[in-house]
Amino acid sequence: METRRKFVQKGLLGIAAAGLAGRAFGADAAGNSVKAGTAKPVGFDLAIAGYSFVKFGLDDALAMMKRMDVRYLCIKDFHLPLTATDAEIAAFHKKLADSGVTGYGVGPIYMTKSKEEIDRGFDYAKRVGVKLMVGIPSQENLAYISEKVKEYDIQYAIHNHGPEDKLYPNATTVYEAVKNLDERMGLCFDMGHNTRDGQDSIKDLERYKHRIFDIHFKNVTSPTKDGKTCELGRGVINIPAFVRTLQKIGYKGKCSIEFEKDMSDPLAGLAECKGYFQGVMDTLA
Amino acid sequence: METRRKFVQKGLLGIAAAGLAGRAFGADAAGNSVKAGTAKPVGFDLAIAGYSFVKFGLDDALAMMKRMDVRYLCIKDFHLPLTATDAEIAAFHKKLADSGVTGYGVGPIYMTKSKEEIDRGFDYAKRVGVKLMVGIPSQENLAYISEKVKEYDIQYAIHNHGPEDKLYPNATTVYEAVKNLDERMGLCFDMGHNTRDGQDSIKDLERYKHRIFDIHFKNVTSPTKDGKTCELGRGVINIPAFVRTLQKIGYKGKCSIEFEKDMSDPLAGLAECKGYFQGVMDTLA
Repeated sequence: METRRKFVQKGLLGIAAAGLAGRAFGADAAGNSVKAGTAKPVGFDLAIAGYSFVKFGLDDALAMMKRMDVRYLCIKDFHLPLTATDAEIAAFHKKLADSGVTGYGVGPIYMTKSKEEIDRGFDYAKRVGVKLMVGIPSQENLAYISEKVKEYDIQYAIHNHGPEDKLYPNATTVYEAVKNLDERMGLCFDMGHNTRDGQDSIKDLERYKHRIFDIHFKNVTSPTKDGKTCELGRGVINIPAFVRTLQKIGYKGKCSIEFEKDMSDPLAGLAECKGYFQGVMDTLA
Repeated sequence: METRRKFVQKGLLGIAAAGLAGRAFGADAAGNSVKAGTAKPVGFDLAIAGYSFVKFGLDDALAMMKRMDVRYLCIKDFHLPLTATDAEIAAFHKKLADSGVTGYGVGPIYMTKSKEEIDRGFDYAKRVGVKLMVGIPSQENLAYISEKVKEYDIQYAIHNHGPEDKLYPNATTVYEAVKNLDERMGLCFDMGHNTRDGQDSIKDLERYKHRIFDIHFKNVTSPTKDGKTCELGRGVINIPAFVRTLQKIGYKGKCSIEFEKDMSDPLAGLAECKGYFQGVMDTLA
């Protein structure tokens, strides 16, 4: 009984700390079915891809994240420019920490034009202090980037952008481009754009699991180029099956919601996505 | 193959029609894992309890429901007064229909003071054209209400309101009060207030399944009187286990979100609840 009570106390304390990453359910001292946190998260970290907030400054973005209780952000340059000084970067991190948010990566950063852009991106990532950069590079510089990845010991995740994207329309084109390069060269898997390109995002998740470092987590209204981003439960991708596959492959990265609908007023849609993701995770826990 | 294509076509059309009540997942003609609707819903109807919109007029409430794609509303008297004329009631229903919303019940209606209040409530429910009324009656008039239920052939669902409620603090007090009356006398089961009263809402759901006609679907921060309503995934009630129990008992009523947090700005919280509920349902489907 004592042990059980301790578990429950620990569990109830755990609720506040656990955030989205894993909940388990137990029973309270009276045997009632209450929810309790666990020391070891069983789910996946939900994040927001910075582009979701393209029409908002950092303060507004953080207020929305706090409201939703989402703790991770992939940093876009309109919130932290590539030209930011070290002092500006420190102030940025402090502001995030004050809202309970961690910036876990940077990007997507376009670097298709020159090696100088690539150098600048790696320098930025290092100064920001992250170990993940989402990038869009030209194919001819991939070997150069692979060397930078070794030098900086950072994951470089190439973003696939759907049928309109001449460089990386889908996950397969990214994988084929990086498979013989350093193992830290991989994908920021945009499951929505991949689906819009007529690909099976669940099969591709499993196929390219060793090279998927980040996910733009979204759903789309149609598995064609006309498909639009929508709330997670309103599209054609079977999200519960996708999350089951994340469990199967032991995915270690973040699930970063990128919500490209209602971008002038995204909170309701983002909150619906956050709730949906958590509902799926809690049901699979 | 022809059969499969037909299934898929039907399925994709079904997506638009199915709303929240049940989705199934299939594969498209190319074998990709896409989501498809089903003719027979496998889930439960999500609704909003009108009280969630206590600070908003009907137009704003319907705009929020449309944004969330929630199709059922339990009608509160501040949106449709008990004194409404038949013409006003018709205009109300038309406005709901224009937003794709159905008013499936009325209440909660307080009727603790007199038989005249009870008569007025039943007359109102009949004129509104619903077969479910949520009420708070005095215990001495329960036999009278049971006769009205027979006369009007309507389900009368008594709302339990937690430890502060002298009449019906929990589901058990309601059940004990109605168990020997007409079988259309039952509960609007407020799973949050029941939990705040120290009860096990999952066990009570199964225990009183034959008398639960409506649910105020919510979560709370603590299984004590100090517990507050919170987003579905942030409280102490194990919602996936609750929904599994709904499946087990073959619940036929609505799951009506009553969100009593951020009542001046409820959309984000309501949307998170809606997403969570749908995520749980889709995962269990």
